[in-house]
Amino acid sequence: MANVAKKVSWSGREREPFGPGEATPLLNGTRGAAATTSSFRQLTPSSSSSRFGRLSNVDLSDDQEPEMEEPRPLPNEIPHSEKLLSLKYESLDYDNCENQLFLEEEKRINHTAFRTVEIRRWVICAMIGILTGLVACFIDIVVEYLAGLKYELVKGNIDGFTETGRLSFSLLLWATLNASFVMVGSVMVAFIEPVAAGSGIPQIKCYLNGVKIPHVVRLKTLVVKVCGVILSVVGGLAVGKEGPMIHSGAVIAAGISQGRSTSLKRDFKIFEYFRRDTEKRDFVSAGAAAGVSAAFGAPVGGVLFSLEEGASFWNQFLTWRIFFASMISTFTLNSILSIYKGNPWDLSSPGLINFGRFDSEKMGYSFQEIPIFIFMGVVGGILGAMFNALNYWLTMFRIRYIHRPCLQVIEAMLVGAVTASVAFVMIYSSSDCQPLQGNSMAYPLQLFCPDGEYNAMAAAFFNTPEKSVVRLFHDPPGTYDPMTLGTFTLIYFFLACWTYGLTVSAGVFIPSLLIGAAWGRLFGILLASTTSGWIWADPGKYALMGAAAQLGGIVRMTLSLTVIMMEATGNITYGFPIMLVLMTAKIVGDYFVEGLYDMHIQLQSVPFLHWEAPVTSHSFTAREVMSTPVTCLRRIEKVGTVVDILSDAASNHNGFPVVEFLPGHEQVAGLRGLILRSQLIVLLKHKVFVERANLSLVQQRLKLKDFRDAYPRFPPIQSIHVSQDERECMMDLTEFMNPSPYTVPQEASLPRVFKLFRALGLRHLVVVDKHNQVVGMVTRKDLARYRLGKEGLEEVPLAQT
Amino acid sequence: MANVAKKVSWSGREREPFGPGEATPLLNGTRGAAATTSSFRQLTPSSSSSRFGRLSNVDLSDDQEPEMEEPRPLPNEIPHSEKLLSLKYESLDYDNCENQLFLEEEKRINHTAFRTVEIRRWVICAMIGILTGLVACFIDIVVEYLAGLKYELVKGNIDGFTETGRLSFSLLLWATLNASFVMVGSVMVAFIEPVAAGSGIPQIKCYLNGVKIPHVVRLKTLVVKVCGVILSVVGGLAVGKEGPMIHSGAVIAAGISQGRSTSLKRDFKIFEYFRRDTEKRDFVSAGAAAGVSAAFGAPVGGVLFSLEEGASFWNQFLTWRIFFASMISTFTLNSILSIYKGNPWDLSSPGLINFGRFDSEKMGYSFQEIPIFIFMGVVGGILGAMFNALNYWLTMFRIRYIHRPCLQVIEAMLVGAVTASVAFVMIYSSSDCQPLQGNSMAYPLQLFCPDGEYNAMAAAFFNTPEKSVVRLFHDPPGTYDPMTLGTFTLIYFFLACWTYGLTVSAGVFIPSLLIGAAWGRLFGILLASTTSGWIWADPGKYALMGAAAQLGGIVRMTLSLTVIMMEATGNITYGFPIMLVLMTAKIVGDYFVEGLYDMHIQLQSVPFLHWEAPVTSHSFTAREVMSTPVTCLRRIEKVGTVVDILSDAASNHNGFPVVEFLPGHEQVAGLRGLILRSQLIVLLKHKVFVERANLSLVQQRLKLKDFRDAYPRFPPIQSIHVSQDERECMMDLTEFMNPSPYTVPQEASLPRVFKLFRALGLRHLVVVDKHNQVVGMVTRKDLARYRLGKEGLEEVPLAQT
Repeated sequence: MANVAKKVSWSGREREPFGPGEATPLLNGTRGAAATTSSFRQLTPSSSSSRFGRLSNVDLSDDQEPEMEEPRPLPNEIPHSEKLLSLKYESLDYDNCENQLFLEEEKRINHTAFRTVEIRRWVICAMIGILTGLVACFIDIVVEYLAGLKYELVKGNIDGFTETGRLSFSLLLWATLNASFVMVGSVMVAFIEPVAAGSGIPQIKCYLNGVKIPHVVRLKTLVVKVCGVILSVVGGLAVGKEGPMIHSGAVIAAGISQGRSTSLKRDFKIFEYFRRDTEKRDFVSAGAAAGVSAAFGAPVGGVLFSLEEGASFWNQFLTWRIFFASMISTFTLNSILSIYKGNPWDLSSPGLINFGRFDSEKMGYSFQEIPIFIFMGVVGGILGAMFNALNYWLTMFRIRYIHRPCLQVIEAMLVGAVTASVAFVMIYSSSDCQPLQGNSMAYPLQLFCPDGEYNAMAAAFFNTPEKSVVRLFHDPPGTYDPMTLGTFTLIYFFLACWTYGLTVSAGVFIPSLLIGAAWGRLFGILLASTTSGWIWADPGKYALMGAAAQLGGIVRMTLSLTVIMMEATGNITYGFPIMLVLMTAKIVGDYFVEGLYDMHIQLQSVPFLHWEAPVTSHSFTAREVMSTPVTCLRRIEKVGTVVDILSDAASNHNGFPVVEFLPGHEQVAGLRGLILRSQLIVLLKHKVFVERANLSLVQQRLKLKDFRDAYPRFPPIQSIHVSQDERECMMDLTEFMNPSPYTVPQEASLPRVFKLFRALGLRHLVVVDKHNQVVGMVTRKDLARYRLGKEGLEEVPLAQT
Repeated sequence: MANVAKKVSWSGREREPFGPGEATPLLNGTRGAAATTSSFRQLTPSSSSSRFGRLSNVDLSDDQEPEMEEPRPLPNEIPHSEKLLSLKYESLDYDNCENQLFLEEEKRINHTAFRTVEIRRWVICAMIGILTGLVACFIDIVVEYLAGLKYELVKGNIDGFTETGRLSFSLLLWATLNASFVMVGSVMVAFIEPVAAGSGIPQIKCYLNGVKIPHVVRLKTLVVKVCGVILSVVGGLAVGKEGPMIHSGAVIAAGISQGRSTSLKRDFKIFEYFRRDTEKRDFVSAGAAAGVSAAFGAPVGGVLFSLEEGASFWNQFLTWRIFFASMISTFTLNSILSIYKGNPWDLSSPGLINFGRFDSEKMGYSFQEIPIFIFMGVVGGILGAMFNALNYWLTMFRIRYIHRPCLQVIEAMLVGAVTASVAFVMIYSSSDCQPLQGNSMAYPLQLFCPDGEYNAMAAAFFNTPEKSVVRLFHDPPGTYDPMTLGTFTLIYFFLACWTYGLTVSAGVFIPSLLIGAAWGRLFGILLASTTSGWIWADPGKYALMGAAAQLGGIVRMTLSLTVIMMEATGNITYGFPIMLVLMTAKIVGDYFVEGLYDMHIQLQSVPFLHWEAPVTSHSFTAREVMSTPVTCLRRIEKVGTVVDILSDAASNHNGFPVVEFLPGHEQVAGLRGLILRSQLIVLLKHKVFVERANLSLVQQRLKLKDFRDAYPRFPPIQSIHVSQDERECMMDLTEFMNPSPYTVPQEASLPRVFKLFRALGLRHLVVVDKHNQVVGMVTRKDLARYRLGKEGLEEVPLAQT
């Protein structure tokens, strides 16, 4: 179908009605006049009824496919599927609306004032870093305290009951404790703020990509997120507290940079200059980076994460500020934790998780290990793809059957109890005893082991996952039995897969690392024994590679993950093998199924824009991609018209081209500017209009401040009362509209449109014909519809879900 | 003046001839026809004489300033100054020309073929990494061998003559040896390839920014660069071999990615798909990153360098490829050097320079040191600014008086001899003797020291600068006398400053680090002694901070430099203080004078585009910024016209809007496309035209291959013979022009135009009026002209120099 459309469009070029030989309708020559006008009339029979400037596609060639003229059908409430794009998500606008108000303000600001603005940006970034670091500290300390209490209690109970054989009571205690913690966390998420579920990384990816996810950067979300994470980790779920830090950092950034909290109804009257999407998104990037930095002690990794997931236009100053926020964040965390742990001058805890020190002198790698690492990458890619595929089916099941909050809470509690029970059974049935001496375990369980020894399975299960990961990296060779590792991998794989997507706040980084570390260590042990020591495979090193492979196979992050792993190990020597492993895991995994985050973004039907247009999309032009008809406004428009357009539920547009009609030719609209729904709402709210009879009167002046005060929660049109008299008034949009919106000609190819849209972070891109008349509008969903599927380019339908 | 223009433009809006009440000239209504046409006529009195579509600014409001209508005066051969922009530099085009040929090719390529292209990109990146690593190895090994020979010879001589008192012979030998090496290197640069002078970083910055510097990525340049660097370092100049690696990597990348060498006249017929600016620049980014990576063992730093200096549009896949090339490069270097040094499995030399291991356990930092580090940053910023200011005057002097190659060679020889003499005098007059034991110095000079001791001044001077830096970082406390360090700093500062800008291939990284390490170590010693040990200032740590401060103060790189320093030390703990130091140095340094690279770029009058438009430039619109008049072509144009336009030396344009004229209204030109000079040249060369009488005949078909074969050295128009008969033929440009060039309306503000131009890496941006008629053209020089000077916005004149 695409090919047909293409051919028509190209052959149409030769037969276009206003060829070089004929008079173009551009100018008022007398020759072409009659023909052209009639031709337009003929093509837009409904134009006389479109009184409000509703513009049909005026430049359709007569051989264009008829179905392109109809608006796309919008089915209601279609069951969720990743093969849909939801229309409910709005887009952020990374393009400044350069209207007269904005230009006047910018011109008033002199060089010194700009420097003040710049200094404010730095101050905000420092505050973002400090607060993110503090939140991370809070989570860490509370988790450690509560988890300590829980494990002490359970350990005491187990130790006491081991002799007497009433261990089922211990199991009951452990399972109940876990389920209770999880219940509280799950109730908070399910009933107070569902967007706080999961790691938040997909949501932040979407936000940085330019999609407005409702509630994602609200204060309430932060509170629920922080408490939820603490409770999930303490509840013993197979989750980590690292991923959610990214979301927390982003919320902190969004809050601070706006200088107010809408939830708390406090406006500090500072940072008002930053109340627009452009600036806010920049700060959210910094917040996300600060979160990564605090989570893994990886400031550079944080910057790269923000850039990889979010930024389209690389700006040196912005990047440097992001790096500053990241550094401050890890430094704050490091300082506070050092003081808390009693070594105030030992800045050795740069992140929530620290992989511990890999000594590069003892643990170098040699050439012959490189193919082995690549093989581990392949294994990681396959296991990661399996994880994602399983999680996909589980998520589909959840969307269909577990969508009521109380069911969600019950599922979460069930997982909590099952996790504890499975762990208990594994520990109970394990006979892998290891000597206790020289071991710094926090809660060694003796169980049926002889005195002076402990249960090795408990070392992996009876601990927070972070600690287990570090132990798998650094415990000396021989600490774990291969059987223990194998069983643990298998069990934990399914537990983690079941856990991701529950209605709790929790991350998937640490469980992935833990699975990978377990099989990586197993792999190292087996390798050393099968080659009879010919390859001296240090189990810790192989655990690290396995962890990287598994994580890479699941999340498919590339550059940033390499750097995060490098920074978390504090070791640069392993950079090359880690990169190889991650790359292999990504390539292998991508062959089967998408990355976990991308999968969940697709399952939410978010109109996410990837880096480039699909490679085979050159056959599409803007004409085929754009939405028509476009609702246009005049420069001086009747208030009633504006209200009617904004109230029209069928076409919930957010941007309206402002056009100039030639009297008597209402279907021909030269583009003069672009105005947003939010701007019109503010104008209506402030009654910025004059009576029709007194057009010469100056209408009320608004300031940019009025728009900024209303940002970002603009009231709906229904809340604004406009009387019948007021409906007859006129409003002059000239000084509020953006007089130079970005445009593309309708012949531009899809990749070209995509590049412009993506590189500049646009929300609306006006498609014009060769006389600068509006023929359509390209928005995010129009571009996100085209995807590269297994069988080539596919077009995803849109839905109101 | 800017303010006046602004006001006029805005008030002009209200009085524009086609207001909403009047008929617009857009359509063929009868009402507005007469008035509009006459109004156009009146505004462009010269239109009848512009037969070749030479278009005047047709939409000038009558109250626009008269001087805007005149083309800007182009003075010839003005003396060099940084307050000029040279017109001799052409621009690279990061925008694909999406003409019919291109689209047809892209449509032919299916999904599988795109995967092949992608795999080729990866293969090329691997080859770039390997070759860059090999070149770095070659440089390292040859330098070590030759420098070893030289120092052995001189040391033997000095040791022999110390007793007999004929040390002046040793001085003569040393100075002659140095001057000879330098002479050979300098002759190569001055007479064979002057663009190989210096570190090449400014040139690569320009290339990545989109400026075509002649010869910068040629094979000859690479050969001269590599030999030149070896000879400069062996010649004992105060230079490093690290900076030039970036240039070398870039040349390697440009060569491999094109699959041919024009210099060697070999075309391997591979990678033809990549023969255009877009792809080539991507690979050059990878090459530059691989160079950094090989030089400092800093793959992540390399990626960030490339992004910081070059990329405007961040693309995940590209970045990942760049990272791959970087990793391969450092891995190759590491492997070869390990084998060369006899420890094949010890991959511990990831870069040409390795700062050695900073043990984070022994050498942490504490809170009270942070203000001290910031103070060091201030010192570094001031010293860096002094360095740059001195070098600025020196460069101005050189541009004025030392522009003949033989003078340049003589100056280089002089510097070589003076460097040796000064070093000799310093060593001779120093009485700082240190015990030899436990010291791994390569060439310890005993001189007048007692047996078992060595001259400490010689440790700093009688060695390659890389080795001296590492020694300053790691020699145990007490190795150097404060007096020695102070004198050394002072002397080396002036030597390095004199050396940078000589006609030799050499970098400034290492000398900067060396100066900084010397005063940093001195600072640490003084600090420890003045606070009576209250602050235990490890001299090595302070040497590192001083090195960072000095380097940051000179080159003013930010994020990438922090990461490079972190990776070169192999230590993440120092990330935060290094960042603080670099940031302070940059802020302080920027207060006085620009960074060294930016300064040299300005001195070359390169139209370099910074990240953002100057902050106070909102008062300018595209109308004031653009160049007029624009030379336009018709879709079917006479060959003679094309040849005349291309041969016109006065307006050496490279891009021509293709317009459609309304018969009888030759001054009104609707934009239909854009065609490049290079494309026209290829068309003329292949005689792609038909006789006027036979317009219906199909003209010869060209393929994209014909354009790619001619890339990048398109022949000049003078070399193409067009007979008188051929001049009368017509050429149809339709399928060769880009039918959807990016445009901006003339009301768009300068920052808006800048953002579009910079983010998409454009070469030509067409300015249109509201009827899509061409009114001007914005190119790189039009935007680069506006700069933020000390007194606010300034407009830099253009010159033919």
